[in-house]
Amino acid sequence: MRILIYNEGRDEKIKPEVLQVYPDGIGAILADIIRELPDYELLDILSMYDIEEKLTDEILEMTDVLLYWSHGGNKQFLDELAQRIQSHVLRGMGFVVLHSAIGCKAFKSLMGTTCSIHYRHDDFERMTCCNPQHPIAAGLPLHIELEKEESYGEFIDVPKPDDILYLGWFDSGEVCRSVMTWNRGYGKVVFLQPGHETNPSYHNPLIQQLIRNSCTWATRTFHLPNLPTDFHQDPSLQANL
Amino acid sequence: MRILIYNEGRDEKIKPEVLQVYPDGIGAILADIIRELPDYELLDILSMYDIEEKLTDEILEMTDVLLYWSHGGNKQFLDELAQRIQSHVLRGMGFVVLHSAIGCKAFKSLMGTTCSIHYRHDDFERMTCCNPQHPIAAGLPLHIELEKEESYGEFIDVPKPDDILYLGWFDSGEVCRSVMTWNRGYGKVVFLQPGHETNPSYHNPLIQQLIRNSCTWATRTFHLPNLPTDFHQDPSLQANL
Amino acid sequence: MRILIYNEGRDEKIKPEVLQVYPDGIGAILADIIRELPDYELLDILSMYDIEEKLTDEILEMTDVLLYWSHGGNKQFLDELAQRIQSHVLRGMGFVVLHSAIGCKAFKSLMGTTCSIHYRHDDFERMTCCNPQHPIAAGLPLHIELEKEESYGEFIDVPKPDDILYLGWFDSGEVCRSVMTWNRGYGKVVFLQPGHETNPSYHNPLIQQLIRNSCTWATRTFHLPNLPTDFHQDPSLQANL
Amino acid sequence: MRILIYNEGRDEKIKPEVLQVYPDGIGAILADIIRELPDYELLDILSMYDIEEKLTDEILEMTDVLLYWSHGGNKQFLDELAQRIQSHVLRGMGFVVLHSAIGCKAFKSLMGTTCSIHYRHDDFERMTCCNPQHPIAAGLPLHIELEKEESYGEFIDVPKPDDILYLGWFDSGEVCRSVMTWNRGYGKVVFLQPGHETNPSYHNPLIQQLIRNSCTWATRTFHLPNLPTDFHQDPSLQANL
Repeated sequence: MRILIYNEGRDEKIKPEVLQVYPDGIGAILADIIRELPDYELLDILSMYDIEEKLTDEILEMTDVLLYWSHGGNKQFLDELAQRIQSHVLRGMGFVVLHSAIGCKAFKSLMGTTCSIHYRHDDFERMTCCNPQHPIAAGLPLHIELEKEESYGEFIDVPKPDDILYLGWFDSGEVCRSVMTWNRGYGKVVFLQPGHETNPSYHNPLIQQLIRNSCTWATRTFHLPNLPTDFHQDPSLQANL
Repeated sequence: MRILIYNEGRDEKIKPEVLQVYPDGIGAILADIIRELPDYELLDILSMYDIEEKLTDEILEMTDVLLYWSHGGNKQFLDELAQRIQSHVLRGMGFVVLHSAIGCKAFKSLMGTTCSIHYRHDDFERMTCCNPQHPIAAGLPLHIELEKEESYGEFIDVPKPDDILYLGWFDSGEVCRSVMTWNRGYGKVVFLQPGHETNPSYHNPLIQQLIRNSCTWATRTFHLPNLPTDFHQDPSLQANL
Repeated sequence: MRILIYNEGRDEKIKPEVLQVYPDGIGAILADIIRELPDYELLDILSMYDIEEKLTDEILEMTDVLLYWSHGGNKQFLDELAQRIQSHVLRGMGFVVLHSAIGCKAFKSLMGTTCSIHYRHDDFERMTCCNPQHPIAAGLPLHIELEKEESYGEFIDVPKPDDILYLGWFDSGEVCRSVMTWNRGYGKVVFLQPGHETNPSYHNPLIQQLIRNSCTWATRTFHLPNLPTDFHQDPSLQANL
Repeated sequence: MRILIYNEGRDEKIKPEVLQVYPDGIGAILADIIRELPDYELLDILSMYDIEEKLTDEILEMTDVLLYWSHGGNKQFLDELAQRIQSHVLRGMGFVVLHSAIGCKAFKSLMGTTCSIHYRHDDFERMTCCNPQHPIAAGLPLHIELEKEESYGEFIDVPKPDDILYLGWFDSGEVCRSVMTWNRGYGKVVFLQPGHETNPSYHNPLIQQLIRNSCTWATRTFHLPNLPTDFHQDPSLQANL
């Protein structure tokens, strides 16, 4: 499984607290997490400062799963690059979308909705599994507790998920569908709500396992050579009948 | 809309607290609730003490929605009557299943699963809508708060619902899919988690509206004359081609 | 129900056969079809030749259902107008997408996929209902036969529909999910495969009923004043707890 | 993957044509098919003549996938054994249901519906994939053609599937959802329409691959020690909060 990490990298520069929680940045902790996957290859860790150069069709062709964290840079992300990601997902690349990356352009384009949420900082979160037989829940307990996390509250404006894995309960009274999956074209998409930049959720072994399970589930099983054209005639069928 | 109410009626006899909350019993408050539906007709209010005589095919043929509350009598309910209810749902009758009726035989037969839950008494519940455009949520707010309710905790062992309307957040840390819908055959099924016998949720105007909306959504739109036989030849098609 | 019709209008100009089947154009036959809805108001019939002027936010604010037929002009449709349609669907407007409008920009943006299909002209189509209890199938028979229609073949690259209503069987050996629905944001979307510009399907009373049922099902039940912003704090919750 | 095969075995005795197509019976060809699975173990091949003795809780505890073909004996199957199968599926056992086993009691109990279909003999079938990225479609082409097969026509009265893999097109004009999946409890269920006892579909390498893929997808990932009780208190949660 060849994994490409995108970590926006902006919060590490403008919020000193981030580096107290993740001394080498969020990209580095994500790299540590996937390193425990049995058949893993890390292609690269990209950030908003180098993607124009590095987020090429060539690297996405090689990518089985794009693991993606972003936040304040969502709006200024280049449309062309978001379309490139979308196109590779539709052709078979897995896409694991972390926390505030719910607002990134590529995810929003794949969903077709606003993906809007409301949030609240420094909530206690208790995740409860409502789909224990799904591969993404494999080996995970019924409950995962996070001492401090940013709550995302419903209505989260996404299309009906194919599966909901965990429901997030928050101390403040918020509740949300905290882990969701969708198929899009030939690719698979996972959204994982935990992962605020100043909360230590990515140090939690259960969240780490959740990320690995998500990568394993979403990994490419198809490699469409090109995006299908809108309308096309299919000569093969006529021949058979 | 012709509605038949089943209220088991056992808790009213063995738990004096029930009558403090619902002086005329749960059947009576349900009758009050549906009385505000514009085109309503109450066919009858049945209980475990008269259903062998009264839960006939004749009355179910006339029923558009069966509104059903049960609890401690779930296990001793006659198999034959549960199958009769199931059969009428499959032929088009709406079935609105309230609270502990999640464990009634007719619902379990329609689901095919154990419908098991775990519970906790005297929780504060805050329901949050995650499907605001669904007809069952029409006119209802994003949040409904219930001072005291029995929490049902996930994993609730039901098949993937067609729609999840509300997520229930409970003070204790529990969370559940609190309002869910399924189609089965030609009929529609709704499950509503609130309604513990000693909690006043059915006096809450928003829960009352939720029950009415559920009846309106689930109401019969089809009246299959008989349950279809397993395997049958279809002579009509041959004729057309 | 206030309905706005968009008929591209290009085929009527460049293919004389269209006017043999639909002498006043596809927009006019669609207007005839919805005229039989009990509470109908036709807001306007727009075409690619006047939408820059007429497809305004004002008219979409008033629209309960946008009934949309398009074809060869899909690619040159203005991005800004497609986004406007998408935004109004997400805020509650119904969107009924006919035949080759599967390739229109607004539908593709709402789906997030390529919506690609392959096609074949002059097929015999036999539609079979696989969801008879759905409101869109109300009053319609198990089978609808169309002497000549353009087949759309799978894999049709759309996200998993919330419901599939009819399966289309074609003489050539093609088969497709011929009627599908999705929720997006606060709006409802229906796709109906029949309706090739030189085939008389819109004269078929059953297809006419299918279009009316689709409008009735998709009609606006929500009117969100604005598109929700991506991330926002929700002060109301804190106050309640 | 430990697989248990149930082949009713009745048609082999009463219809000589079956043995012309499958000289050692349907159980034997199914055993041949799964023999090509990499990590396969065949536990046994049971029939209606020995299941009272052999379809024990012990063997089902060991079974990862139950591959099940049945037909004329569906109605006389013992209720107690059907419940035993259902219970093991709900506890995690995979269940691959072939052709006329759509009418077997265990499948019907898991679905909660009549599972009725109508049928037609000696149809040409052309299956088309509408879900190419699903693991059950892995390595399979867009189309699978079967010279002679029994058509099953919609409306097939099953609950909305989690996924539809293939649509079956039949020469006669019938069409159906030919491969479908559901989760039930902790187990996975697949239905495969091809496999009439006098048609050679199980000799077709693509159908063989479809059966193997179905077993791989449905295989047990969970082993619940007991069926959950209906209502239970959960002391663990209280302790955590």
